[in-house]
Amino acid sequence: MKKFILSFGIILTGLLLTACGSADNLQGGTTSSGPKTQLTGQTDSSYYQGVIENGRYQTSKSRGVSVQQESNQFNIKGFENGLLNISKKQFSTKKYIFQEGQYLSTNTVENWLNRKSKTNPTGLNPTSNGSTSPTKRNPLYLSQIDEQDFVVQNGKKLNLSGMTIGLAINSVDYFKKSQNGPTLQTNISDAQVQSQGKAIANQVLQRVRKIKGVGNIPIVIALYKQASNDSLVGGSFFDYSVNTGSSSAVSTWKPINQQTYVFPIPSGQKGPNKNDQDAFDNFKSQVQNFFPNLSGVVAQVQYTDGILSGMNVNITTQFYSQTEIISFTQYLQQAAEKYLPQTAPIDISVQSTEGMESFLSRGINQKNFTAHIFNSY
Amino acid sequence: MKKFILSFGIILTGLLLTACGSADNLQGGTTSSGPKTQLTGQTDSSYYQGVIENGRYQTSKSRGVSVQQESNQFNIKGFENGLLNISKKQFSTKKYIFQEGQYLSTNTVENWLNRKSKTNPTGLNPTSNGSTSPTKRNPLYLSQIDEQDFVVQNGKKLNLSGMTIGLAINSVDYFKKSQNGPTLQTNISDAQVQSQGKAIANQVLQRVRKIKGVGNIPIVIALYKQASNDSLVGGSFFDYSVNTGSSSAVSTWKPINQQTYVFPIPSGQKGPNKNDQDAFDNFKSQVQNFFPNLSGVVAQVQYTDGILSGMNVNITTQFYSQTEIISFTQYLQQAAEKYLPQTAPIDISVQSTEGMESFLSRGINQKNFTAHIFNSY
Repeated sequence: MKKFILSFGIILTGLLLTACGSADNLQGGTTSSGPKTQLTGQTDSSYYQGVIENGRYQTSKSRGVSVQQESNQFNIKGFENGLLNISKKQFSTKKYIFQEGQYLSTNTVENWLNRKSKTNPTGLNPTSNGSTSPTKRNPLYLSQIDEQDFVVQNGKKLNLSGMTIGLAINSVDYFKKSQNGPTLQTNISDAQVQSQGKAIANQVLQRVRKIKGVGNIPIVIALYKQASNDSLVGGSFFDYSVNTGSSSAVSTWKPINQQTYVFPIPSGQKGPNKNDQDAFDNFKSQVQNFFPNLSGVVAQVQYTDGILSGMNVNITTQFYSQTEIISFTQYLQQAAEKYLPQTAPIDISVQSTEGMESFLSRGINQKNFTAHIFNSY
Repeated sequence: MKKFILSFGIILTGLLLTACGSADNLQGGTTSSGPKTQLTGQTDSSYYQGVIENGRYQTSKSRGVSVQQESNQFNIKGFENGLLNISKKQFSTKKYIFQEGQYLSTNTVENWLNRKSKTNPTGLNPTSNGSTSPTKRNPLYLSQIDEQDFVVQNGKKLNLSGMTIGLAINSVDYFKKSQNGPTLQTNISDAQVQSQGKAIANQVLQRVRKIKGVGNIPIVIALYKQASNDSLVGGSFFDYSVNTGSSSAVSTWKPINQQTYVFPIPSGQKGPNKNDQDAFDNFKSQVQNFFPNLSGVVAQVQYTDGILSGMNVNITTQFYSQTEIISFTQYLQQAAEKYLPQTAPIDISVQSTEGMESFLSRGINQKNFTAHIFNSY
């Protein structure tokens, strides 16, 4: 059955994409009268295909809310990437097609993200208690809502067959006493992040079940703890639940044991794994000494169940010549293979003030790094 | 013989890199007393290995002169990349190791790039004729000098065995009448670019032959016509010569038929190839319509002997979410394979204000594009 669905998915793509005859039109049609639906194609099976309607990407109904509200872009990218990975556990990229959230509008999401009040009865953040003391006020817990829809082809239609909703909870809530005053912060304990997140999740699930068109699809809800605004890495997911049938309250939470860090770990602070930290520090010192001028070397790292599950190394250097960049990149490839941990996928980018100069990447089961040096004519 | 050298080169690398015992030291030693020499390693045979001494890259003796003097970075990168390609015709990446120029110092290059005068007798640009009229003054012709050394292993030493010198000639010379005055320009005809470039090349060859340690190695000299400062693509090489033995004057110039353009070609202007331009325009309009907001699509293109030999597409878009970037990149892969010319290597980068979001690449003999989406934790 699974194999059938897989083949079907591939045929669907093929049909939609080969249906187009003329050279200036990528579109195929699923219906002759309705909107022309097309899929984005799939780079590889680690990504979902997306939905194109009438030649244009079907964007989220709440497009741009997160970008407008979040100060730390790592909390947006980490949140969305992580949520996709959770979705993939439940909704296979081979069977399901990804659709940007179509059921929660900008207006809805903005109201939900605000405090509950007389004028905003649907607010999911607590009513103000009047205090402006960092430790006494009611902080805002909920910071981002991301809806991901999963559809499957049924005849000529794409039918909603699953949904994932991510809720990002503040670990720090930033506020000002007056418009031009300094930014203050209320720290939120892990226990509060968890209990508030779960309470909000129940309300969200209940509301989403009632939205017209959603029905009895499986709804995954996942909870993310945001990093602080000055963090060089995003936060991490800590719990998720799969809610099947008509359930409108979460019965079982599955914990996610995931943490993010920035390497190098500052001296005196405890890191996740001494071996990995030493390996990175050795790599860093080799790389920093390559040029007479210093190169900056930092990494975002992620641990899952105590094991390194991903690393993004960012190297900043001064551009002197293309030949230096070529030599540097080749050296990095050797140094990375020699020093950096073997188990996790690793990206390394080399940046100058002009932008990205080169980058190296090693996938999860690959032995060697591939390198790309950005050319210019 | 060639095969022997090839193997030898690989063994050399292997020796140098496996010679190091401790985990925190990449260095191998070629001599026990002198500087420890190491190579950068080779990503693939399209790149030269570079030279590392005592753990540090052996930088050019005139490091940074071009970066300081050139306003248009495309003229630096295009010049250096193009020069490497000319070098590869003469000095195989399998036999030769690349060494940043060690014979022309910053001081020498700066003097040569200046006007000839009583205080600067070695200046390779003409003495001022006193005029400040754009059409009557003597412009500066020579704008960049790039020295590339090619060495081979001989016992425990790396011996200089070849050299390539690139000379970049202005097509426009920018000047000011007074320090705070407006920037004016003197346009230089193609005929002048060629004749002045060749005259300067003869002087340079004569001087370089006399430098201690250079001897009777083959010296390649290549001439590059710079693009204007506002160009979105660099210039191109138009002539080169291989000067063997003790020759100190160029006897034979080999023309290079290479041009660079920016796509889209402005309407009303003549481009290099109507089919390629139409293909790009179709790609562009597909891509620009993908999101409700407009994406910018421009390309640097290079033609060699009338045929497209390379394309760098730069797409700028607004970041709304990681899932949009994933869908966009997958769509681009299909659109690029469908529309863009098949023969040439093509890079496509997707940029937002946050930097590079994703990129796609297809090598010279590859059928499909590979894509990489930059992740964040």
